[in-house]
Amino acid sequence: MSGAGTAPGGDLPGVTATGAERGRVLAERAAGGERLALARLLTEIENRTWAGEAALRMLYPRAGRAHLIGVTGAPGAGKSTLVAALVGEARKGGRAVAVLAVDPSSPITGGAILGDRVRMQSYAADSGVFIRSMAARGHAGGLATTSVAAAAVLDAAGFELVLIETVGTGQSEVEVAAIADTTVVVQAPEMGDEVQAIKAGLLEVADIVVVSKGDRPGAQRAASQLRAMLTVGAREDRAAAGRPRPKRPEVLLVSAVSGEGVVELLAALDRRFDREARAAGGADRPIDAQRLARAEAQLSGVLSERMADRLRDPRRAADLRAAARAVAAHEMDPYTAADRLLESL
Amino acid sequence: MSGAGTAPGGDLPGVTATGAERGRVLAERAAGGERLALARLLTEIENRTWAGEAALRMLYPRAGRAHLIGVTGAPGAGKSTLVAALVGEARKGGRAVAVLAVDPSSPITGGAILGDRVRMQSYAADSGVFIRSMAARGHAGGLATTSVAAAAVLDAAGFELVLIETVGTGQSEVEVAAIADTTVVVQAPEMGDEVQAIKAGLLEVADIVVVSKGDRPGAQRAASQLRAMLTVGAREDRAAAGRPRPKRPEVLLVSAVSGEGVVELLAALDRRFDREARAAGGADRPIDAQRLARAEAQLSGVLSERMADRLRDPRRAADLRAAARAVAAHEMDPYTAADRLLESL
Repeated sequence: MSGAGTAPGGDLPGVTATGAERGRVLAERAAGGERLALARLLTEIENRTWAGEAALRMLYPRAGRAHLIGVTGAPGAGKSTLVAALVGEARKGGRAVAVLAVDPSSPITGGAILGDRVRMQSYAADSGVFIRSMAARGHAGGLATTSVAAAAVLDAAGFELVLIETVGTGQSEVEVAAIADTTVVVQAPEMGDEVQAIKAGLLEVADIVVVSKGDRPGAQRAASQLRAMLTVGAREDRAAAGRPRPKRPEVLLVSAVSGEGVVELLAALDRRFDREARAAGGADRPIDAQRLARAEAQLSGVLSERMADRLRDPRRAADLRAAARAVAAHEMDPYTAADRLLESL
Repeated sequence: MSGAGTAPGGDLPGVTATGAERGRVLAERAAGGERLALARLLTEIENRTWAGEAALRMLYPRAGRAHLIGVTGAPGAGKSTLVAALVGEARKGGRAVAVLAVDPSSPITGGAILGDRVRMQSYAADSGVFIRSMAARGHAGGLATTSVAAAAVLDAAGFELVLIETVGTGQSEVEVAAIADTTVVVQAPEMGDEVQAIKAGLLEVADIVVVSKGDRPGAQRAASQLRAMLTVGAREDRAAAGRPRPKRPEVLLVSAVSGEGVVELLAALDRRFDREARAAGGADRPIDAQRLARAEAQLSGVLSERMADRLRDPRRAADLRAAARAVAAHEMDPYTAADRLLESL
């Protein structure tokens, strides 16, 4: 068995069937701990194949135990280094941990801007660590649907912690917050003005804000400023009618390089997750608003895909093309065209 | 009549009807050059109201003449300054120009990270300039749908150039490229590694790459490097079977501060647009692949919205909630749940 969790797939002996049967076999093997099967299955999920769907249908009842942790932040904030440090700390405790590096960049390049590759390679032979990059392909919203599915597979495969890392520069951090149990926003001590503005959006999704590069001058001061800012924000939000803010994020200072603060971060994450579990009064976690919202988002994503599939049906492609042509020529407005297409569905 | 194109709306005398009738009145007034009506109509479009839809249905046949120019680039690249310079240059020629600053940041904050506000205020009294910020609200993909609708309204209102400015840090620049006739990617001469990687994605959508801050040391060299890189890229793309690259972007050096290169940029934009018009052999522009793709994206966006509306129907809300609860409890997988919901539609 190969220990290379990042392997793109390759041929998997014994798996030759197609579609649902292929998915069933992959699901069984992945759940049984075969890393190559897991890698292959994630590729099927990423490519939205029938096999991937069939596998997820099988594995879904087994999922729901892992702590899904979103890690986001502006480019250069230090996300990948922090993730690597968290993995190291989790492994010291013998806990199985998976990393999903979700790349929301151009679907054309599918560029890999995430992942501390060099640092992560030291885990290539560690069966308790699984690392995977995923590009968000195709239509918008695909990021969330694919990531939730991939996280559920890793969850079902027995990983206790699933770290979902994504660059937070727009819609993506909101999507990640929607699918994670806990969202960590990473913030470098010094950042430009425009990045600061983006950061404001990021902070709204944070359960925990990590000021990275804690060894740098000014990191302590940045953490204090953030705490002050978030206190004011929480007060303003309470004042704003109809928009209660249920949580005020913790701010932690971490130096991934020296390792300072990493233990505390993992402890804070565990505390948050345990609190949820205790609230349920036992081993089963409650279906809180967060989990319900995640399920709704997931459901909407699948519904959108299903509807898009219907439109892509070759029998309808000609209708769609003709309607688009009329819209492009400004002979028909897009609403009228859409309504006519919907009638034919 | 107010010259404040950026006015959020306010009360518009004489417009009190609701829904379709209200949309009709707003459409007539906006097309007639009433800036306050135009501002109000764009708010309706942004909020996806029936009035906005009714207005767009009316205005759509009048649209299709403006040159829609996407301006994107990483945070800090100098987009807003460039847009302000382009507006100034267009006004020297007496051309009506609209700016749509599309903010793809958090739907929670709706933060305004775009727009060179100070510089733009000098146009507040100029009826040939209209400036508007729009937040991308709600679901993913909404950016494109709302922006296309807003651009069509500005187009129908007689603006010759519509500049659609957005920060390019993920999905958004691809979406903007999909809705623009011409896409300008702004690139500062010096940028960090991670930003470089994002840039690679940006460059793929570019018709014209502007190296901004052309007065800075190294700008000339950055432009040369980009030209070399894009030549190699074009060659590689030709070599890659099945993925022909139809265009190789021009690289222009612009200093928005000194004004150097701005005339050349506007000339390059006009050249591109005229070439298209000439290809059609007359005043009417051809329905090229770009415009067809835009119409298809627009149509898909409206279809998704329509389908989402059906799901949000109060009579179905209970079904959706129950299904989400089953998925959240891992009693049912999202695919099975989605299929059952679809059967009931």
